[in-house]
Amino acid sequence: MRDVYVIGAGITPFGELWNMSLRDLFVAAAKDAMKDAAVGRLDGMYVGSMSPGLFVGQEHLSSLLADYLGAVPVPCVRVESACASGGGAFRSAFFEVASGASEVVLAGGVEKMTDFADVTGALATASDQEYEGYHGVTFPGLYAMMARAHMRAYGTARDEIAAVAVKNHENALLNAGAHLRVRISVEQVMSSPPVADPLRLLDCAPVSDGACALVLASEAYAKQSKRPLVRVAGIGAATDTIALHARSDLASLEAVARAAAKAYAASSRRPKDVQVAEVHDCFTIAEIMAIEALGFVGRGRGGPASKGGETSREGPIPVNTSGGLKAKGHPVGATGAAQIFEIVTQLRGEAGKRQIRGARVGLAQNMGGSGGSATVHILELV
Amino acid sequence: MRDVYVIGAGITPFGELWNMSLRDLFVAAAKDAMKDAAVGRLDGMYVGSMSPGLFVGQEHLSSLLADYLGAVPVPCVRVESACASGGGAFRSAFFEVASGASEVVLAGGVEKMTDFADVTGALATASDQEYEGYHGVTFPGLYAMMARAHMRAYGTARDEIAAVAVKNHENALLNAGAHLRVRISVEQVMSSPPVADPLRLLDCAPVSDGACALVLASEAYAKQSKRPLVRVAGIGAATDTIALHARSDLASLEAVARAAAKAYAASSRRPKDVQVAEVHDCFTIAEIMAIEALGFVGRGRGGPASKGGETSREGPIPVNTSGGLKAKGHPVGATGAAQIFEIVTQLRGEAGKRQIRGARVGLAQNMGGSGGSATVHILELV
Repeated sequence: MRDVYVIGAGITPFGELWNMSLRDLFVAAAKDAMKDAAVGRLDGMYVGSMSPGLFVGQEHLSSLLADYLGAVPVPCVRVESACASGGGAFRSAFFEVASGASEVVLAGGVEKMTDFADVTGALATASDQEYEGYHGVTFPGLYAMMARAHMRAYGTARDEIAAVAVKNHENALLNAGAHLRVRISVEQVMSSPPVADPLRLLDCAPVSDGACALVLASEAYAKQSKRPLVRVAGIGAATDTIALHARSDLASLEAVARAAAKAYAASSRRPKDVQVAEVHDCFTIAEIMAIEALGFVGRGRGGPASKGGETSREGPIPVNTSGGLKAKGHPVGATGAAQIFEIVTQLRGEAGKRQIRGARVGLAQNMGGSGGSATVHILELV
Repeated sequence: MRDVYVIGAGITPFGELWNMSLRDLFVAAAKDAMKDAAVGRLDGMYVGSMSPGLFVGQEHLSSLLADYLGAVPVPCVRVESACASGGGAFRSAFFEVASGASEVVLAGGVEKMTDFADVTGALATASDQEYEGYHGVTFPGLYAMMARAHMRAYGTARDEIAAVAVKNHENALLNAGAHLRVRISVEQVMSSPPVADPLRLLDCAPVSDGACALVLASEAYAKQSKRPLVRVAGIGAATDTIALHARSDLASLEAVARAAAKAYAASSRRPKDVQVAEVHDCFTIAEIMAIEALGFVGRGRGGPASKGGETSREGPIPVNTSGGLKAKGHPVGATGAAQIFEIVTQLRGEAGKRQIRGARVGLAQNMGGSGGSATVHILELV
């Protein structure tokens, strides 16, 4: 298997982007990424998107986006794994380059969510519709149950969970493209309107529009691009049961743990080697469970570690320097690609005021639904 | 790049399957394929499905189907490219095995269409919604325009187009799993109710439920499986503009021609080497245009060749021995996989009364929308 590099990265602002359609968003990000890579070649495309059929009445993004990017006849498919669609698209593109079949492949993600009225209903299609969605459970409800289980198992406190939101909003202040650029306090999180007890409004990622794209390439093309060499050092993916009721433990993310184990093994890296990470904080509790599953902190220590500043930009393992899904925004299909965008930006030393100095090893963790699917990618500056 | 083999194949009947849900369908096909392959290992899964969000309110098939197959924690993603989703899933699985990352990967497709009222509206999401769908064009309308263009450019006659339906229904009589197992005549096609002039009801593939799965493997695992060795000799994919209005010629399928050129080059095969083919006959005219784009007959000769029996089981290039989308049925996400299922069955010599004797090289051509995306796979008996 050949080495694969990320040689280009492009992103749109995330937010309520009334003046941009789905195709506008993706094309903007993809053009940025191609310009950044500066190679005059494209052999394939993968686009992560969760539910354009429900959100904007458009499937067949493969043809649509190759067309509007001006890339026809380049092959393209859409990859979907709910909110892990972006990570899945990146993984598929990785295999195409690693196999030797292609030299330069674009992987990205897009979601246009704010044109649609019933976003919560559309997102519920990532749960088990027969056993969860149709009975009225929404995603805030599912993560609320996971939060309760974590609080019961480990004594995780409400203010520890709120600390995640406070930190990620703080980081987003340094990210010009973030959706929610406003400083918040633990008290504000804990007194914001209840959504699904114990989770409140400021525990939830916003509904955002946005797109992101990355260019993957073989070593020969990576060297042509003249950008800092960022190698995909290890990849991992896994599934879990789609419904919460089928899991033995609601307080852990087994698919994330398994995907991470594969990525660590493939890269010969350990959790303590990771210097910067983007994790899937669709709700505050998700970040606490993710940093445990990734081995950054011990099981049950996610709450105290978050409150104690271990995941802040100055801590031993800075998490979600971009602002995370919580504050950067969460256009679901774009999220997995946007996490890798942030890691690439950090490893290149181009993260401006939120730069983690000397970061050479980074990790991006993306997941779908309540953790039914997960991808983990470890990247290294060569 | 390593050689990749198809070592297992499973399929459900196609039709109005009221007693089976989407998950039931996929699990049945996947279990059959795994049993056929007889290897106790699975490293990854790809599921083609066009629009489960619209058809049954369920996205995140990756987790759902890995879960219900009992395959958790095996990684899985859904691949979507409208009606070319199955071909796209197979292609992605091919890269994963070819790269050396995995030994045994399942690729399949599923669609549960008959639970939903507005199937035509859901299928229209494969067209350009902004410029086609929202203005009232449906897929029968788009293919009717292509048929008119073909008739004008090449003098293709109505009875030549009807001959495709007659042949494919004839073939379906020999396929126990086909949706429409009824003999029809050219006169019946031409006097069936008009849908979009010049296309009539019997020019259109039916709306079907169904699933299909294939197991791809490295050479080492292919030899373990003890099944006839069917190698993926060449693959190709391409895109075209999503909207018809942007094409220079409505009477040809450029994405199919480009995908075929790649697959022929990769396999060092020419059109005349192909002994059996499954092509994407969502409408009768589509088969005529496909056999031209694949080089089986010259440009404009698709009509006379079809009427003249050149694509019948006894002709020089048997096309759609399974009954094709037209008569076997067209559960859109499953179709690309089901085409490869038929080719594998033919190359193994297991096609019963519809067997093409001595077939060692076969081709499967899948496309999305009005030809905005296409895949071509050439398989060979080793």
